[in-house]
Amino acid sequence: MTSSPGGLAVGLDLGGTKVLGVVVDAAAAGGPLIEEKVATPRGAEAVVDTLADLGAQLRDRAAGELGRPATALGVGAPGLVDRGGTLHLAPNLPGVVDIGFAAVLEERLGLPVAVENDATCAAWGEHERGASRGHDHSLLITLGTGIGAGITVKGEVLRGANGFAGEPGHMVIDPDGLMCPCGRRGCWERYASGSGLGQLAREAAHAGRADAALALAGGDPEDVRGEHLTTAAAGGDGQAKEVLARFGWWVALGIANLVNLLDSDIVVIGGGLVSAGDLILEPTRTSYRELVLGADHRPTVPIVPALLGGHAGAIGAALLATARS
Amino acid sequence: MTSSPGGLAVGLDLGGTKVLGVVVDAAAAGGPLIEEKVATPRGAEAVVDTLADLGAQLRDRAAGELGRPATALGVGAPGLVDRGGTLHLAPNLPGVVDIGFAAVLEERLGLPVAVENDATCAAWGEHERGASRGHDHSLLITLGTGIGAGITVKGEVLRGANGFAGEPGHMVIDPDGLMCPCGRRGCWERYASGSGLGQLAREAAHAGRADAALALAGGDPEDVRGEHLTTAAAGGDGQAKEVLARFGWWVALGIANLVNLLDSDIVVIGGGLVSAGDLILEPTRTSYRELVLGADHRPTVPIVPALLGGHAGAIGAALLATARS
Repeated sequence: MTSSPGGLAVGLDLGGTKVLGVVVDAAAAGGPLIEEKVATPRGAEAVVDTLADLGAQLRDRAAGELGRPATALGVGAPGLVDRGGTLHLAPNLPGVVDIGFAAVLEERLGLPVAVENDATCAAWGEHERGASRGHDHSLLITLGTGIGAGITVKGEVLRGANGFAGEPGHMVIDPDGLMCPCGRRGCWERYASGSGLGQLAREAAHAGRADAALALAGGDPEDVRGEHLTTAAAGGDGQAKEVLARFGWWVALGIANLVNLLDSDIVVIGGGLVSAGDLILEPTRTSYRELVLGADHRPTVPIVPALLGGHAGAIGAALLATARS
Repeated sequence: MTSSPGGLAVGLDLGGTKVLGVVVDAAAAGGPLIEEKVATPRGAEAVVDTLADLGAQLRDRAAGELGRPATALGVGAPGLVDRGGTLHLAPNLPGVVDIGFAAVLEERLGLPVAVENDATCAAWGEHERGASRGHDHSLLITLGTGIGAGITVKGEVLRGANGFAGEPGHMVIDPDGLMCPCGRRGCWERYASGSGLGQLAREAAHAGRADAALALAGGDPEDVRGEHLTTAAAGGDGQAKEVLARFGWWVALGIANLVNLLDSDIVVIGGGLVSAGDLILEPTRTSYRELVLGADHRPTVPIVPALLGGHAGAIGAALLATARS
């Protein structure tokens, strides 16, 4: 199956709770022309049906509303996706394992389909239309419930031998540290994700080092979440800022490890936490300079917020599908 | 300056104590046709002179003894080498900082010169003539005094934005861990290098968990080195094997972190420690399977010893220079 690179493309971003679908113009800059969101159902079969239905709907809306056919469909999926479009392991999609999405969707939709890791798609979206445009060696880190990553090398997506590249969330950074649901101890995402920030916030609240955040949460330390901390810090609370500085240190620790290895020319931070902006990014930048190897002997790497927000994955999936089809 | 890819090439591997120089045939498989070793002097100027003299000598011997001209010279240097051939930071070469080796050597030798990180050169040598032939996404880890790494992606060397890619030795894996001379705590090379093995061995000897190795060292725990441990383990000593199993776990921890990120299809272990063979590699393989993400959902990654020994860096430097010139 082939497509003209100038056509429209459909992108679907499969998340743990919802699927976001978009139609984008692969040839013209800009955001989604159409978008649509549905809930993620439980179970492999229902997930496949949902993707096929949403894909078909967007394909038909492209033809009807925009008067041009969609020529490819891309799916971003959370987990290990191989080069043939099979999802092998998706901890956030219970029951979805070893599913050959690409083949099934191609048959149902009559379009060339590419399935890629969701953070890889987001990295490509930011590279083509967002914060890392013009940077050939970009690194996207998404800080949400867990941590995802997408990497470009020489202006191309880094997929690795099987398509599994870019999984630093379970990089062990403290072997005696917190237990992770994956069975290991001290995975980076125990500390530097949204869940990690919540954990830091509750620890601080219990220890009397986050009084303003504790008050915002209603007084029970167990109810303190990351948002209470960022709200308190935005209001100038020194205690909350200190906890965020510690959080930024954990984020920076992993980023420095990755830049030591990849020599990236930009680091884009995406995911839910990016809404806290410089409250998190400033301490991250400061600690990064202390943690990266030879900071005085290498160009400063910009650490910047993602520009496409929650749309990066779906846009990138659509554009990757166009490039591959 | 240009060269025919079929010519001879000179490769120099600049180490902390010696420089190894080779002449290789870039077109024909096989090892060095000529080799020569000299001591590494102190100071930037003396290092440049030594490289120029050894390079000139090998260039002339190629023409004289082999009757064919060398068409390029490659240098592998330990540290951050930028894409223009300038060495920015080399902790093991005191006084050598911000030296534009490539330009100076080109002028003195009248040959196209490429300067690259030494582990990158070694990875390329193993990829072209050694253990990772046929593997497009290879990872070479050298375990010596410190830890070096070289990476290939899609069959090409991963240099990164500045040429600094592949420095996992200072990946922080235990923020409250051992102090590293670099100023950070818990760098991977504090645990998984030759120095790390010596440290583990002395700790075990002090604790009465390495009696055979202690006897081999003459009875003072402070004199126990990695070799005593591997000798005792090779003789069947259970205590020594347990310490090596722990060491293999540290090696595997870092490798798993890297494979999670890069999705490599082979891991080649080089450096001095590789002489211990399966005494170290077997526990590394076992622990790796526990530590990598989704071991049951991905192909097994072979963890194998390097084949070119101490020649990998010089051979790879020569071949990279030929490819670039």
